[in-house]
Amino acid sequence: MNMLAYKAICLDLDGTVYRGIEPIAEAVSFIAKAQAQGIDPFFITNNSSMTREQLQIKLASFGINADREKIMTSAVAAAKYCSEYYNGASVAIIGEKGLEEALTTEGVRVTKDNPDIVIMGIDRSVTYEKLTDACLHIRAGAHFIATNSDLVFPTERGLVPGNGSFVKLMESATGKTPIFVGKPEPHMLGFIQQDNGYKKEDMVMVGDNYNTDILAGIQFGIDTIHVASGVSSREEVLAKEVHPTYLYQTLADWNI
Amino acid sequence: MNMLAYKAICLDLDGTVYRGIEPIAEAVSFIAKAQAQGIDPFFITNNSSMTREQLQIKLASFGINADREKIMTSAVAAAKYCSEYYNGASVAIIGEKGLEEALTTEGVRVTKDNPDIVIMGIDRSVTYEKLTDACLHIRAGAHFIATNSDLVFPTERGLVPGNGSFVKLMESATGKTPIFVGKPEPHMLGFIQQDNGYKKEDMVMVGDNYNTDILAGIQFGIDTIHVASGVSSREEVLAKEVHPTYLYQTLADWNI
Repeated sequence: MNMLAYKAICLDLDGTVYRGIEPIAEAVSFIAKAQAQGIDPFFITNNSSMTREQLQIKLASFGINADREKIMTSAVAAAKYCSEYYNGASVAIIGEKGLEEALTTEGVRVTKDNPDIVIMGIDRSVTYEKLTDACLHIRAGAHFIATNSDLVFPTERGLVPGNGSFVKLMESATGKTPIFVGKPEPHMLGFIQQDNGYKKEDMVMVGDNYNTDILAGIQFGIDTIHVASGVSSREEVLAKEVHPTYLYQTLADWNI
Repeated sequence: MNMLAYKAICLDLDGTVYRGIEPIAEAVSFIAKAQAQGIDPFFITNNSSMTREQLQIKLASFGINADREKIMTSAVAAAKYCSEYYNGASVAIIGEKGLEEALTTEGVRVTKDNPDIVIMGIDRSVTYEKLTDACLHIRAGAHFIATNSDLVFPTERGLVPGNGSFVKLMESATGKTPIFVGKPEPHMLGFIQQDNGYKKEDMVMVGDNYNTDILAGIQFGIDTIHVASGVSSREEVLAKEVHPTYLYQTLADWNI
């Protein structure tokens, strides 16, 4: 496969480009080679806590020179979703700096009083009061959007509660289910296509997690590449009904 | 029906004896009459946040003279459950003063490090760190007990997240389901029977909520009385497959 066949190489981050605070060497080399050939990859993450700039700095610490505009987080996608589908609406958030800044950048009005929309992302400063406010807003009719549905995420201490688990709390307390914008939903890929005018055959989604990365690509209808450097093993992926377009051990196997 | 047929009249609190901070007059009179006839009711609540003493003071403010030993909360039941089924085990808690004090009174060792058991009750000072610690303990093999499964509870602001919603979060993050000790599980009634040597025909459970109060009595196998002063209407109750033994509008209808 010729890398130049794609204009938009969309790389998942955790498990594909790095693992926590360790870079994956084959991914770092791959990105440098791609950039040398004039293809600047996109970075697609369900992480809503970090800003684009914080992720850019993290990638730079691994020797990766990422264009800020090519970093797509579930927070950025949630903000774009609001301005696209609920233009002018006010938003209350449970979330961290990444979500707050994404909304401000997109020009979305953030409020605590009678919001039209509640957006939930991971918030490690969450309080009972924040959850109660969100519960009452949603019960009063506010739309309910969640950045991502990941039930847990890995840390050095083990798997800890992710935004998806807090969403389960909110679903139980309100009887409402949110719209998820993160992977495996295809919204992040949709915004990349839309903002850059790509055709679907121009795009490929690369990731380690079948249930988020690969499914997002499949649901969006673009080529997908599985790398065996993270969550899903090659065997697990081959046991799925719908396979990715290509399976690699690492990105070093993608000859460019 | 003769009230004297029962030695243990088990009254739910919220919706049966009071509504939030307002006493239900018919219940207050009923309790006074019962006590005048030598029957001192039990009070059975899924509330785990308040201590027996705090509930005693609240009841006193409505003119009800409650014996502290006859107040059974889901926190007291959780503590009794631990000492009965996991004697000597250490416990980490998410919860408020009611839970903390119930465990101490029962002589259960409370710890933050490597507990044998995690007990979850409502905690309006909950933090991400507390939830993460509990998640890691349960993932490491700690038993998982929850005081009650109420998804929401009423406040003057509306329905707000209850312990059951936080349990959904923890279930999602750990893949484990807890043992619930509160209603509709029969444990609280079981401890009352056991501590006082009652026969089942000595006992009656009185409450407004079919899905918690009445089901607890039915599951425990004792007579039940529904009062239409709270959550479930008489019509809703009559639509259920298994009916309570008696249905009253208020406790004034119970001629004594």
